[in-house]
Amino acid sequence: MITSVSNPKMKHVIQLNKKSKTRYEERVFVVEGIKMCMEVSRELIKEMYVSERFLAESTNRERLKGYAYEEVSDAVFSHISDTKTPQGILCLVQMPEYALEDLLGDGFPAASAVAEEPVSAGKQPHLLILESIQDPGNLGTMMRTGEGAGVTGVIMNRTTVDIFHPKTIRSTMGSLFRVPFYISDNLEETIAILKGKGIAMYAAHLKGQICYDEPDYTVPSAFLIGNEGNGLSPEIAGLADTYIRIPMEGKVESLNAAVASALLMYEASRQRRKEN
Amino acid sequence: MITSVSNPKMKHVIQLNKKSKTRYEERVFVVEGIKMCMEVSRELIKEMYVSERFLAESTNRERLKGYAYEEVSDAVFSHISDTKTPQGILCLVQMPEYALEDLLGDGFPAASAVAEEPVSAGKQPHLLILESIQDPGNLGTMMRTGEGAGVTGVIMNRTTVDIFHPKTIRSTMGSLFRVPFYISDNLEETIAILKGKGIAMYAAHLKGQICYDEPDYTVPSAFLIGNEGNGLSPEIAGLADTYIRIPMEGKVESLNAAVASALLMYEASRQRRKEN
Repeated sequence: MITSVSNPKMKHVIQLNKKSKTRYEERVFVVEGIKMCMEVSRELIKEMYVSERFLAESTNRERLKGYAYEEVSDAVFSHISDTKTPQGILCLVQMPEYALEDLLGDGFPAASAVAEEPVSAGKQPHLLILESIQDPGNLGTMMRTGEGAGVTGVIMNRTTVDIFHPKTIRSTMGSLFRVPFYISDNLEETIAILKGKGIAMYAAHLKGQICYDEPDYTVPSAFLIGNEGNGLSPEIAGLADTYIRIPMEGKVESLNAAVASALLMYEASRQRRKEN
Repeated sequence: MITSVSNPKMKHVIQLNKKSKTRYEERVFVVEGIKMCMEVSRELIKEMYVSERFLAESTNRERLKGYAYEEVSDAVFSHISDTKTPQGILCLVQMPEYALEDLLGDGFPAASAVAEEPVSAGKQPHLLILESIQDPGNLGTMMRTGEGAGVTGVIMNRTTVDIFHPKTIRSTMGSLFRVPFYISDNLEETIAILKGKGIAMYAAHLKGQICYDEPDYTVPSAFLIGNEGNGLSPEIAGLADTYIRIPMEGKVESLNAAVASALLMYEASRQRRKEN
């Protein structure tokens, strides 16, 4: 049993929890809690640590059958955990990686086959594209809502908060492992590629003249959502085909970014449901 | 200038920021930041404190004309502030208080006058009713989204996180001062009163058979939203006229409470917009 916080493995966990740089250098991140750990594909788990107290419960030991894990004293576990009241289980996980194409839905016809491929063959691309979202809880909530709304993927730029931040991971409630995502080094270029594939770009923008429930989102569509404080940059907003707005009563100047994206993604979901 | 953190006024501010009990005993709470402070009706402001650095800017001094305030050293201000990077202004504010009737919209006909009052006379009741929401950020976001969606009021039980929690106040982005709210000591009783007034109760519930965009919310309507982890209690859910569900794809078990309530409130808003 590991009983010292200066154990190199424990120091490593803390480092991975704290530093985005370390996570990307090693392409490994930390997942905490029994439910989340059980959702990770086994082949992606590199190490697993459980607390004494966690192991004391027989149902927990039962769930861990077939997993390789190391026991850690409760005091040390509290120290390496990112939460105030740790459940007593965490694992180091290899980062999932997707290509941009993985986010375009089953039914997206290859450029050369547009005529042959029926529109109904699968899911049309339905993307959420994020510019410089800062709050890890917002990002996680967007992934979670995105899965519920049936997005085909979430794209973000490098200045968006790290999707492997412990708080983001918690807020996704497991969607991190199910929604394909893509971190773009050059968001303008990525958007240009998507436009080239015929995906309509909608920017939630205060200048929008068109109400968010007017466009037809049953065709390949993407929603551009900007930073919590400043919205979309003029460069990214300039790439949108259409500016849309969410009507706001009272003196509200903007909605929370996770709320705004939820309204857009679910409007697309609503339209696509009605179409089927 | 106040230069000591043991100054009784400074201790009082800290106490008000930390303790819900103190806030309710004195019926006073703390508002921080220039934008939020400027939104408070002047007659509700009891005390105002500004930092040296804040006062050093002439535009700030300009904005404070007509306000009574006390100067506080930067070090002391950092200490009394609830934020990591304080703007340097906060005020103690008398709690706004609403009667339940204040939340029912202009157009709600008095029980005795139903026949005389045209339905279009004003806003139909559109309420958000919260049971035991725990996250202050969620509660604040719900108030903000509620204002945008045009709710006539937000009702919550006593075990919902305190609406005057510093983090809730920040997340409302000023909606706290504009959306009527009511803290119920007995939520079942309050719901019974509202049902007696002909307000339809919709519960967002995993057992819901009816999709959230099916009912007609142009009539007096209220949405019941439960705790983040456990949803609505059986007692409160049992008072609903209709269980509705938000369709979720993938393996999502539930949506974030602020997201779910946003989808419901904005669906009502959408229907009411189309009706006019």
